[in-house]
Amino acid sequence: MAPVLRKIFGIYPGSFDPLTNGHLDLIERASRLVDTLIVAVLHNEGKETPLFSVEERMDLIRASLNLPNVEVDAFDGLLVDFASHKGATVIVRGIRAISDYEYELQMALMNRRLRPEIETVFLMAGEAYSFISSRMVKEVIRLGGRIDELVPPMVASRLKDHFQPGKQ
Amino acid sequence: MAPVLRKIFGIYPGSFDPLTNGHLDLIERASRLVDTLIVAVLHNEGKETPLFSVEERMDLIRASLNLPNVEVDAFDGLLVDFASHKGATVIVRGIRAISDYEYELQMALMNRRLRPEIETVFLMAGEAYSFISSRMVKEVIRLGGRIDELVPPMVASRLKDHFQPGKQ
Amino acid sequence: MAPVLRKIFGIYPGSFDPLTNGHLDLIERASRLVDTLIVAVLHNEGKETPLFSVEERMDLIRASLNLPNVEVDAFDGLLVDFASHKGATVIVRGIRAISDYEYELQMALMNRRLRPEIETVFLMAGEAYSFISSRMVKEVIRLGGRIDELVPPMVASRLKDHFQPGKQ
Amino acid sequence: MAPVLRKIFGIYPGSFDPLTNGHLDLIERASRLVDTLIVAVLHNEGKETPLFSVEERMDLIRASLNLPNVEVDAFDGLLVDFASHKGATVIVRGIRAISDYEYELQMALMNRRLRPEIETVFLMAGEAYSFISSRMVKEVIRLGGRIDELVPPMVASRLKDHFQPGKQ
Amino acid sequence: MAPVLRKIFGIYPGSFDPLTNGHLDLIERASRLVDTLIVAVLHNEGKETPLFSVEERMDLIRASLNLPNVEVDAFDGLLVDFASHKGATVIVRGIRAISDYEYELQMALMNRRLRPEIETVFLMAGEAYSFISSRMVKEVIRLGGRIDELVPPMVASRLKDHFQPGKQ
Amino acid sequence: MAPVLRKIFGIYPGSFDPLTNGHLDLIERASRLVDTLIVAVLHNEGKETPLFSVEERMDLIRASLNLPNVEVDAFDGLLVDFASHKGATVIVRGIRAISDYEYELQMALMNRRLRPEIETVFLMAGEAYSFISSRMVKEVIRLGGRIDELVPPMVASRLKDHFQPGKQ
Repeated sequence: MAPVLRKIFGIYPGSFDPLTNGHLDLIERASRLVDTLIVAVLHNEGKETPLFSVEERMDLIRASLNLPNVEVDAFDGLLVDFASHKGATVIVRGIRAISDYEYELQMALMNRRLRPEIETVFLMAGEAYSFISSRMVKEVIRLGGRIDELVPPMVASRLKDHFQPGKQ
Repeated sequence: MAPVLRKIFGIYPGSFDPLTNGHLDLIERASRLVDTLIVAVLHNEGKETPLFSVEERMDLIRASLNLPNVEVDAFDGLLVDFASHKGATVIVRGIRAISDYEYELQMALMNRRLRPEIETVFLMAGEAYSFISSRMVKEVIRLGGRIDELVPPMVASRLKDHFQPGKQ
Repeated sequence: MAPVLRKIFGIYPGSFDPLTNGHLDLIERASRLVDTLIVAVLHNEGKETPLFSVEERMDLIRASLNLPNVEVDAFDGLLVDFASHKGATVIVRGIRAISDYEYELQMALMNRRLRPEIETVFLMAGEAYSFISSRMVKEVIRLGGRIDELVPPMVASRLKDHFQPGKQ
Repeated sequence: MAPVLRKIFGIYPGSFDPLTNGHLDLIERASRLVDTLIVAVLHNEGKETPLFSVEERMDLIRASLNLPNVEVDAFDGLLVDFASHKGATVIVRGIRAISDYEYELQMALMNRRLRPEIETVFLMAGEAYSFISSRMVKEVIRLGGRIDELVPPMVASRLKDHFQPGKQ
Repeated sequence: MAPVLRKIFGIYPGSFDPLTNGHLDLIERASRLVDTLIVAVLHNEGKETPLFSVEERMDLIRASLNLPNVEVDAFDGLLVDFASHKGATVIVRGIRAISDYEYELQMALMNRRLRPEIETVFLMAGEAYSFISSRMVKEVIRLGGRIDELVPPMVASRLKDHFQPGKQ
Repeated sequence: MAPVLRKIFGIYPGSFDPLTNGHLDLIERASRLVDTLIVAVLHNEGKETPLFSVEERMDLIRASLNLPNVEVDAFDGLLVDFASHKGATVIVRGIRAISDYEYELQMALMNRRLRPEIETVFLMAGEAYSFISSRMVKEVIRLGGRIDELVPPMVASRLKDHFQPGKQ
């Protein structure tokens, strides 16, 4: 039996406001599973104001990554429409907790209903990252805590500029 | 940026005692994500006696599948050792319920500790298959229920031979 | 032993903003369990602005239903007080996910504390509807997706009027 | 609108090995929701040996109940076939914990697939009974603990006869 | 082996907006586990406006407690920094539901990362309090329900003053 | 306010068949919360045959620990009776997964019913140990995997003697 050679595009969508070490770990692992991985930053208009603009978030991701087969892009509208437009057939999602998992399952079922040809795959968060979320990182630095081990150096530096401008 | 062409081997392990339509759905979907998928039947020695032998289970899987890039194999010992021996870098697991998910997470973390180069990816069960498990199929037919929509035709026929020998 | 004939009033409360096919499935199933079922639309004042007014929501439910023993009504205040005022002894709730379930359990325990004579019964969402929520329907159409299979035709039409006024 | 008068038969199935105060609470509450409730004791052949025979379990239930519209019966085979044979359209299940709930959901979906005309409804365990299961009751008395507040008096007496024959 | 005598300070943090009988039960139980327990009211600036000011909340806690080794204090900033400043080595948290538990786990892991010398211990809510939360208490009284059995008398009185000024 | 000095005995019960690094981490952390901690090995008669005898398990725990305020003991019968007999007022339990947590909650509620004066406190497993259980350790070595980072050296050595007698 001859193996079928496929060229698989994957998408790793998120807000990345900001990128954490947990995201970085997932991007590196996902990049080994597909031929090209697009890290897709969500324009989350309508929700609460993001800390960084989409452009800043994309820049921080690009500055923190050095992987030949990973691209950074942005999208609004339906994720599956963006995936389809890009020719991606795989959506990659990380899961930390059970509650994530439930929401993710619901989204994945909806996305399959909308575009059955696109598959959602889940990677579990590394145990060292299981408690790191963008929201918790922002909360910790807002309250004066250290976030250096939680986010890439460039992100840590930008967060300190924002929350502790006189300190650095 | 030139995409990196990889040849990815995946493994979908399980007891498959017997193969269900839920397994079949997952195999078809997983086969689109990798170059070659090995459906790996577990010799579950030490546990309760299986209904079908490993050879019968492999035959039923082969008879129910028609996918060019899917192989059927068997293993005992550690799954990650088998994966490594086969050159596979991806383990595919389906998840139905939260309780599955917890056990799967624990296994995946242990497997990563044992072989960090092998990644476990999770696909969610299709909603139509979320309540079908090998165990429940056996329970239903043992109690006299219909299992024709729950398993492939060949499996249904073998189950009837076993549980309702005079009926067919 | 002579069976006791009871006349049981049930209440199926919710925001129904908008009614989905999941709600419709539940109403039909619940209507077979009680003598009269009141679909009770919640005036959710104080929370985020609803998409449709209580009157519009009641109209859409009435227009999508054709069941002789189902009434549509609206309420504010405590659900158990409304139930008691109506003479209902059963509250019907649908559950999709574990997280729903926890919140529902907490509500049901509180409601029993407030009015022990009223029982909450849970029906599980059909597997085909497990990922459909009013919020997700609004999100999908807001982002330009198709919602025709997710809600009754009349609701789909009203959603398109609202989100895609020029399109239809 | 004239309410439709229905005569609803419900079934509350279980092993009841032995009946606990949690079961009793559920039976009383369920009996108010249906015209006739059948408490159906499962012949769980094939599993671990029960403590009490089906007949003993039925006797203990009958001796602990005094409700005009509740019958006690036994069944083997598929629950939905027994329900159908009895003319019951409702299966009543109690849920304590999340893990119960998942298994119950899976069973309910399977049962609906087998007999779509039979509905499963869930009642939540009262908070005072949330930690009482037949298994835990047997474990506590086996290890010498008091079970008088956990089961009806007749059951407590029988358990003491069995586990602490000289003590009583 | 001679037991080591330690003097252990514990902190029980929360919003307490308002104090419930569930909180009170937990404070009493936690006070038996440590030498001194500080009930620490969170200045939750930035979030939704609290019902009672930090001072009012502290007064209501003090008025509802009569335990020699319990102090009431307030904090903003990182909880672990406050604990460290006070010389506390234990953070006490109550858990009701699974969803609580997940968030609590994530917080506890983050807190251990920030200050490994501080341990978080969880006590489970008493079953009689498992459905009482500050938010639900406010919701019930806002809608006209009775909250007398859910909160200490002083708190009930203040809630009535606020929500039902003419009624009392 | 003068802090009350208490002498608190805690019990950390388990099968410890065998002791893992996760247990060890928990014992060290728990020993800082109480004056004396008793690691209590359960005689689990009636269940599946343990790998090591109670005496071997106690020896392995003693050999792997070096903490002045920790004792090792064994018990059968009800845990709360043993705790009471020893004068312990605290039961310490570690929790890894949600499913652990549910069972633990149920046990803790039952134990409180049996002996209200004994409190159960939960510590969460360290993230590095979240996937290590005695059962999984035995499974891994049985299948030929490395367990050196999962258990203390003395335990690893005994496990190799048992499962890989010729190898070491």
